[in-house]
Amino acid sequence: MSQAVAHRYEQVARRVQGLVESGTLRTGDRVPSVRQLSRDWGVSINTVLEAYRLLEDEGRLEARPQSGYYVTERFPADSGQLEVTRPPARPSLVGVDALVLQVLQDTRDPRLVQLGAACPNPEFLPVGRLDRFLAAAARRLGAEGHVYLLSPGHAELRAQIARRSVAAGCSLTPEDLVITSGCLEALNLALRAVCKPGDTVAVESPCYFGVLQALQHQNLRALEIPTHPRTGLSLDALRFALEQQDVRAVLASPNFNNPLGCRMPDRHKEELVDLLADRDIPLIEDDIFGDLSYSGDRPSVCRAYDRKGLVVLCSSFSKDLAPGYRVGWIAPGRFRDRVMQVKSSSTIATATLPQVALADYLAAGGYDRHLRRVRRAYARQVATVARAVLTFFPEGTRVSRPQGGFVLWVEMPGRRDSLVLYERALEAGINLAPGPMFSARQGFRNFLRLNCTWWSERVERALALLGTLAADTPAFE
Amino acid sequence: MSQAVAHRYEQVARRVQGLVESGTLRTGDRVPSVRQLSRDWGVSINTVLEAYRLLEDEGRLEARPQSGYYVTERFPADSGQLEVTRPPARPSLVGVDALVLQVLQDTRDPRLVQLGAACPNPEFLPVGRLDRFLAAAARRLGAEGHVYLLSPGHAELRAQIARRSVAAGCSLTPEDLVITSGCLEALNLALRAVCKPGDTVAVESPCYFGVLQALQHQNLRALEIPTHPRTGLSLDALRFALEQQDVRAVLASPNFNNPLGCRMPDRHKEELVDLLADRDIPLIEDDIFGDLSYSGDRPSVCRAYDRKGLVVLCSSFSKDLAPGYRVGWIAPGRFRDRVMQVKSSSTIATATLPQVALADYLAAGGYDRHLRRVRRAYARQVATVARAVLTFFPEGTRVSRPQGGFVLWVEMPGRRDSLVLYERALEAGINLAPGPMFSARQGFRNFLRLNCTWWSERVERALALLGTLAADTPAFE
Repeated sequence: MSQAVAHRYEQVARRVQGLVESGTLRTGDRVPSVRQLSRDWGVSINTVLEAYRLLEDEGRLEARPQSGYYVTERFPADSGQLEVTRPPARPSLVGVDALVLQVLQDTRDPRLVQLGAACPNPEFLPVGRLDRFLAAAARRLGAEGHVYLLSPGHAELRAQIARRSVAAGCSLTPEDLVITSGCLEALNLALRAVCKPGDTVAVESPCYFGVLQALQHQNLRALEIPTHPRTGLSLDALRFALEQQDVRAVLASPNFNNPLGCRMPDRHKEELVDLLADRDIPLIEDDIFGDLSYSGDRPSVCRAYDRKGLVVLCSSFSKDLAPGYRVGWIAPGRFRDRVMQVKSSSTIATATLPQVALADYLAAGGYDRHLRRVRRAYARQVATVARAVLTFFPEGTRVSRPQGGFVLWVEMPGRRDSLVLYERALEAGINLAPGPMFSARQGFRNFLRLNCTWWSERVERALALLGTLAADTPAFE
Repeated sequence: MSQAVAHRYEQVARRVQGLVESGTLRTGDRVPSVRQLSRDWGVSINTVLEAYRLLEDEGRLEARPQSGYYVTERFPADSGQLEVTRPPARPSLVGVDALVLQVLQDTRDPRLVQLGAACPNPEFLPVGRLDRFLAAAARRLGAEGHVYLLSPGHAELRAQIARRSVAAGCSLTPEDLVITSGCLEALNLALRAVCKPGDTVAVESPCYFGVLQALQHQNLRALEIPTHPRTGLSLDALRFALEQQDVRAVLASPNFNNPLGCRMPDRHKEELVDLLADRDIPLIEDDIFGDLSYSGDRPSVCRAYDRKGLVVLCSSFSKDLAPGYRVGWIAPGRFRDRVMQVKSSSTIATATLPQVALADYLAAGGYDRHLRRVRRAYARQVATVARAVLTFFPEGTRVSRPQGGFVLWVEMPGRRDSLVLYERALEAGINLAPGPMFSARQGFRNFLRLNCTWWSERVERALALLGTLAADTPAFE
């Protein structure tokens, strides 16, 4: 498309954004129909359509099928944009264990306000329904529910997952899937299937700490790739890195990187897959937040563009259904045998009844309705927490603009030390995840991640207190 | 004790054994009281006591508290003794994956007679009771049952395990324990906590294939140590190996090695712990079959003799309660932090409700009664299968004499190839575990392991057929 045309879309988009920011259009309002706005503003239908799509990509509008575009929870307009990250260009051995363990341990302390680990708020889980399916499965199966359900795992659950994969742009079959004990086990299996100790794995920067730990414990090196706060992994940087370094695999979360919450555009996904396919490098795709897109659609996965069996897709039900069930899955592509072998020697099998209960729940219907409710709630709460952070934190604080998931990434100005803030917050009864947990080299020292699944006056008070503490937090060297 | 005295015990023991083999005393009979036999045979009370203990050690008699000694299910008298194993003296990289995967996969085929994987017969699991506890826990906990139950895991379950550890000679506290997703995850965590890729781990020969796979997938080398079919790991051979090789850890199942079923005498356990303590080498102790001793007592664990925090004790509820729940545990000694870190980066947590259900089941009482019933049943069935094997298999076939657990190890004469037998048995509808699965170098080619938890006419017919097939099985090169 020509620059002039793109410029026109952009202009219309910013005008609509202005209506939102001025309060003319409020959160949850339907915006004028495409036809209406085209008439009103005297621009082509196509221009309006592209402008709306641009705003949707930015998370400002959400499309609802057969209904039109709506204003998503207004993200604070005055938040500065985060910058592309600039990790060091060399792979490094990881060491985030002690910090991670402490933050995770503290999630068990009911006295703390839990803004640390990315555990979903059980209020947003269909607890009662799932438990009824679990009890019914136990009664129905009897002894059968007590034997090992060996790999690849429960056939009906795999069928349900395969059915849902169509919405993500790939048509998996039940045979493509292996059930795991959560997504992190899936990622571990993928790494073990693909890498040997000492290998280098390219990851996003920032990167989910569980992945960094998995690399560490498998004696792999992490090569952190610059990552854009809105579009994810920088493909230019990755291309450059692949020329410079011997990279054995790439591990990324194109849909809603944790902690950034950014969504890689579809054309980038395709480009990423092609880039790696040319070099025969496997892509381990962590899609654990993929179902929690604020814009209402189900974003595609890189696996959708895979023609060589090189994309290993990993996910679970831990973020939107049942973290305590510990059920995830992997679509290992050409590495299926190896993944099955490693799984059988790691945990033998995944617990039987939780698999059956989830399969029955999915078969009964209602999961999509549940997801719609949860997505909207998380979009709203992440925006609310962002607003509170920008209100209470020192001037110059910047926040991510998540397009899915339920965490917020916060940058404090003036090299304020999030490790010090973490300690002081803990003393004040607040658990958070300091930035260095998300870097193999303990970078992001003036960043922190907040879990936004909780919202209450208590949380608001905690954020106000956190802002005060942040103001007093000293700079690191 | 002097040789002459030991000889006297032995004589009395063989005389009692003669009464059993002649049919004067039958399975389940109470043998004469110590006092009675001492009077009848004119030997000292102490001599009778030692003779009975010797027979108990051999699994011929079982002691029942406050009641006396009873004849255990008669083990076929004409079974030749297995010999001490003679593995190669060098460590080797392991490669048993494909075979293991096939045998495990086939356990899902209901058309096969399942003599392969060591999965317990659900008839010997308290299925209904556990499921009632599971449903009650789900109702009681609601949302709480759906959140991550992070390491170290459910406090009440750890308290119950700690309470039971007294019977095994060690007094663990709840803080000593970390809940895992089965015993194999516990062993994997222990290996990862203790070893680096390329390290050598000394194991029993034969050795449970899950351990060999875990070593392989962690890029560790297995050094197979000669193992005695009655007393387990040869300490002389181990001592020699430690002088010759750089051994990073020892992994063993002193209580009922899988597949041998042998029980290491307590004094050997103590000696093993001291031997390793002198050299600061960790012992990873797999006690998964520890509760299934035929003699009725709870054998001690090596951990009972540990004074340096070097013994990492691993077990689970998968052999006697609930394989499908996937709940095990590890007492990591001085490696606790590292184990917790590796656990959090492997599977994050173990499923919540199964942990709670098991804790409630254990707290309610009845587990020991359940174990007594199961132990007796397995002792009986293993003997029955052994008898069938010696009846139907070619002359010269030898079997193990398990003192616990539920598997039988069979040696075929004339270098008959168990890999060929495995294939032919599969065609005839029978799954078994060929010997090479239990060796890092695919030794034990004329051995096979049979799961004895099932017994029925169908199984008897299968064993008869297997015997016929074995007779026709060609020798390997």
